[in-house]
Amino acid sequence: MADSPLKLIVVGSIGIDTVATPSNRAENILGGSASYACAAASRFASTGMVGVVGDDFPSQYEHAYQKFGIDLEGLQKKPGQTFRWSGVYHDNMDERDTLSTELNVFADFSPDLPARYREAPFLFLANIHPALQVRVLDQMNPSSFVLLDTMDLWINTEAPLLAQVISRVNLLAVNESEAKQLTGQRFLPVAAKQLLAMGPKYVLIKKGEHGSMLFSNDHTCLLPAYPLADVIDPTGAGDAFAGGMIGSLAATGQVDVASLREAMMAGSVVASFAVEAFSLERLQSLTQAELDERIGLYRAMIG
Amino acid sequence: MADSPLKLIVVGSIGIDTVATPSNRAENILGGSASYACAAASRFASTGMVGVVGDDFPSQYEHAYQKFGIDLEGLQKKPGQTFRWSGVYHDNMDERDTLSTELNVFADFSPDLPARYREAPFLFLANIHPALQVRVLDQMNPSSFVLLDTMDLWINTEAPLLAQVISRVNLLAVNESEAKQLTGQRFLPVAAKQLLAMGPKYVLIKKGEHGSMLFSNDHTCLLPAYPLADVIDPTGAGDAFAGGMIGSLAATGQVDVASLREAMMAGSVVASFAVEAFSLERLQSLTQAELDERIGLYRAMIG
Repeated sequence: MADSPLKLIVVGSIGIDTVATPSNRAENILGGSASYACAAASRFASTGMVGVVGDDFPSQYEHAYQKFGIDLEGLQKKPGQTFRWSGVYHDNMDERDTLSTELNVFADFSPDLPARYREAPFLFLANIHPALQVRVLDQMNPSSFVLLDTMDLWINTEAPLLAQVISRVNLLAVNESEAKQLTGQRFLPVAAKQLLAMGPKYVLIKKGEHGSMLFSNDHTCLLPAYPLADVIDPTGAGDAFAGGMIGSLAATGQVDVASLREAMMAGSVVASFAVEAFSLERLQSLTQAELDERIGLYRAMIG
Repeated sequence: MADSPLKLIVVGSIGIDTVATPSNRAENILGGSASYACAAASRFASTGMVGVVGDDFPSQYEHAYQKFGIDLEGLQKKPGQTFRWSGVYHDNMDERDTLSTELNVFADFSPDLPARYREAPFLFLANIHPALQVRVLDQMNPSSFVLLDTMDLWINTEAPLLAQVISRVNLLAVNESEAKQLTGQRFLPVAAKQLLAMGPKYVLIKKGEHGSMLFSNDHTCLLPAYPLADVIDPTGAGDAFAGGMIGSLAATGQVDVASLREAMMAGSVVASFAVEAFSLERLQSLTQAELDERIGLYRAMIG
C-alpha cells in the first residue's frame, strides 16, 4: 500500500485547533488545510500528504490519517510543538476572529517531496507561503496538474511572488473577496478574466454557501452549493471542497469541462459533510452509501 | 388586442423614482414593482397591469407600457401625484438607503380587477399591503396560480394578515433575510420547510447575485444567478426576476418542477438585462435574439 503509485499530493498546514462557535466549543482538535484536504481527497483517490508536525503530535491523529488511507511518507516530524490555531466564530458563522496562532514547527517548514510523490499526476498546493509553494513546484514533475489555494495575507504581502506561483499552476482557487482583492474588479466574470490572463487555464471562485464558479477562456460553469440544514463547525470547509474536487479529478485522471463540473459537485458534497461536526469527525464516520446518496440528491437539485 | 384573453395579471406599485448609484444618477424615471414585473413578464405572455398613477403621470411612460404590449385596462388614473421614491445605493450596490417616499395616490390604492382580468390563469401579487393582496385574491378566480411577493415591513407590522395571504397562494417568493425573519430559522432548507407548512405548494428564496432556490415538499431546485459583468442600477431586479418567472410559467400554462426551473432561468436572465440600465430602458431595447442568446449561454453555464 505504502509503495503503490499515488494519484494526488497535498501540501499544506497541519494544526491543533481550538474552535468556538456560538453554541459549541472544541479544544485541541486536529485541523489545518492539509488535514481537511487529504481527508476529503482520500475518499476518491490515493493521496500523499506533505506537512510538518511537532513531537507533541498525538498518535491518535496520525492514526486518523492512516484510517483515511492517507500516505504519510511526506509527513515530517520535527522537535518542538505542532502549529496551533484558535478561533471564534461570529453569530452568523460567516466570519471568525483568530484568537491565537502559534506557528511552532510550521515556522521553519520546508516541504520536501519523497521521490515517489514527485511523479503524481495531481498536486494540491493548499494555503502556505508562496515561497514554499515555489519550492514544491520546483520538485514536482512539471506535467502534474496543479490546483493552487492562497489567502489574503499573501495577496497583501507577497504579491509578486504569488503572481509567479499563479503563472505556474493549472487551476487557481480563490474566494470571492480574494478574487476582487487580486484584481481590483468588483464583478466576478471580469475578475476571472484577469486572473486567467495571469496564466492558469482555470479559475475557481469559491463562494461558500453560495456555491462556486469555474472559468476558463471559453467556458463558465456555475454551481450552487449543497444547501445545509445545519452547521456545527465551518472550519476547513474550503479545504474539504478543494480536496474533494482535486481528489475526484485525480480519480478520473481526466481534466475537462465535464470532469471539472463533477469534481466541483464532489467537493461541494464532501464539504457539506465536513461542517456537520468538528475536525475530521464527520468525514471519518461518512460511509460510501451516505456520500452516494447525497450526491444523488444534489444532482437532482441542480437539475 | 385589448380584448384578447390575458394569461397573467400583475398587481403592484407604480412609481416615479430618483436613483443614485456610486457612479450614476437618474431623476424621475419610471419605476415600481408592477412596472418592472410587467415589463419582464410581457416578454413571455400577455400581461395585464393593476396599479394606480396620478394625473401627473407622463404620457411617455404610459406609451412605454403600451410598447411592451402590457394591457392597461387595470391601470387606475386618480387626481393627484403619482407615488414617488428616491434612494441611494451603497458602494457595493447590495444595500441602499431610501431618501424619500411620497405615497401620494398610492396611499388610497384599492385594486379593482376588470372582469376580464379575473379569469386569467396566473396572478403575480407584487409587494403591496397584505390587505390589498387579500382584496385582489377575493376578486380573482380561485383556480388561478398565484405568486406572492412581500417585504420586511409587512413581516414586522402585519404578520397575522400576511400569514393569511401566504396560506392562500401557490408560490411564495421571499429573499434570504425575509425567509429568516418569517421563520426565525438560519438555515434556508429549514426555513423553507416551515414556510411550506404555512400553505403554499412552492417557496422561492431569492438570493440576488447568488441565485435562487425553489422548495416544494418533495423537491428542491437550486439555480445560480446569471453572472453579471456590470450593474448600472439594481432597482427592480427582484421584480424583473419574479415577473420573468411568472411570465414564463404563464406562457407554458404548466406548473411542474421542470417548467418552474425553466421559469427561474427566464427570470434570472431577464433580471440580468434589467440591471444593465436605469428604469425599463434595457428591457425596452432588448431583442428576442439577445434574450435567446443569453438564455443559451446561461444553460451551458449551469450544465
